[in-house]
Amino acid sequence: MNDKVVVLRYGHRPGRDDRMTTHVGLTARALGADRVILPDNAGQSAETIRDITDRFGGPFAVELRDDQRAFTRNWEGTVVHLTMYGERVQDVEADVRADSVESDTPLLVVVGGEKVPFDFYEEADYNVGVTNQPHSEVAGLAVFLDRLFEGTELEREWEDADRRVIPQETGKRVVDPDEADAERVGDGK
Amino acid sequence: MNDKVVVLRYGHRPGRDDRMTTHVGLTARALGADRVILPDNAGQSAETIRDITDRFGGPFAVELRDDQRAFTRNWEGTVVHLTMYGERVQDVEADVRADSVESDTPLLVVVGGEKVPFDFYEEADYNVGVTNQPHSEVAGLAVFLDRLFEGTELEREWEDADRRVIPQETGKRVVDPDEADAERVGDGK
Repeated sequence: MNDKVVVLRYGHRPGRDDRMTTHVGLTARALGADRVILPDNAGQSAETIRDITDRFGGPFAVELRDDQRAFTRNWEGTVVHLTMYGERVQDVEADVRADSVESDTPLLVVVGGEKVPFDFYEEADYNVGVTNQPHSEVAGLAVFLDRLFEGTELEREWEDADRRVIPQETGKRVVDPDEADAERVGDGK
Repeated sequence: MNDKVVVLRYGHRPGRDDRMTTHVGLTARALGADRVILPDNAGQSAETIRDITDRFGGPFAVELRDDQRAFTRNWEGTVVHLTMYGERVQDVEADVRADSVESDTPLLVVVGGEKVPFDFYEEADYNVGVTNQPHSEVAGLAVFLDRLFEGTELEREWEDADRRVIPQETGKRVVDPDEADAERVGDGK
């Protein structure tokens, strides 16, 4: 698989962090990352993300690991650590883009929960703040990915989905992807 | 106060949703909204958001209400409902911008949790999907606001803060805003 942009979640408290960790993974998938790495005690979040990928398509990989620090240290490519203490995303996004998607260099995006060890600040090529305000690691990841890909992630096509949502002005429409393809043929597109 | 962009959270289950609702409110604050309206059973989230505003600055208002449907129906301005079933954000963002920040029209952004009643789909001027994939209402709100404001929200100055984070390449630096002003003078800026 393509494995150019990987999101690594540092820290997880089972129960308390389940939804935040799940949302980190689902946001990574929806907004163009290829893989998410979760702490090995986040099995429930991993299961939810895999289930969404099975239904809504991929490719997208979910991995559980217990060596987040070593994995980051040994990453062959660029490391971004998202933190409210970092440099302003609007100031560094072009450099990050040049050092990753534009130069075919693998990018690891580290998303902390509470209390990220100082190692991650030091191992990162870029400590990046989506604002220097306290808000949400999910929001920070979302804005970072949308800016990294300059919106192209929104045009992604999904493979092996067994359902597809058709954008509607009002209401909900979910179809079988084969049906959607048939409709597009019918529309002459 | 300026009250041009208001985020309304629909639905909250105390305990289970506390962190998501808090993150919706903090994201609204950090990314340029003027006010967040939470369900009246989300008092703990409201307290956290107010506490952050006290420390990191405003203006930003937090309100608890129990009349989310009527409030949305009676809104004098434009209503956007964020939903994975809606029109693609990249297709409608210019229209939404023209009908809100560019024409000085108040904008209400409805952010659902689970099971949003059909009323909201009908009352909305725009049902908007930040992707048509399941991910996170916090991520959807973040990308929507960043696109609505075209990044200008990241340049916001905060009033009445008692601390300010100074962007750093590595590490953490938090100062008293008076000290930061003094430094800017010292830098000749």
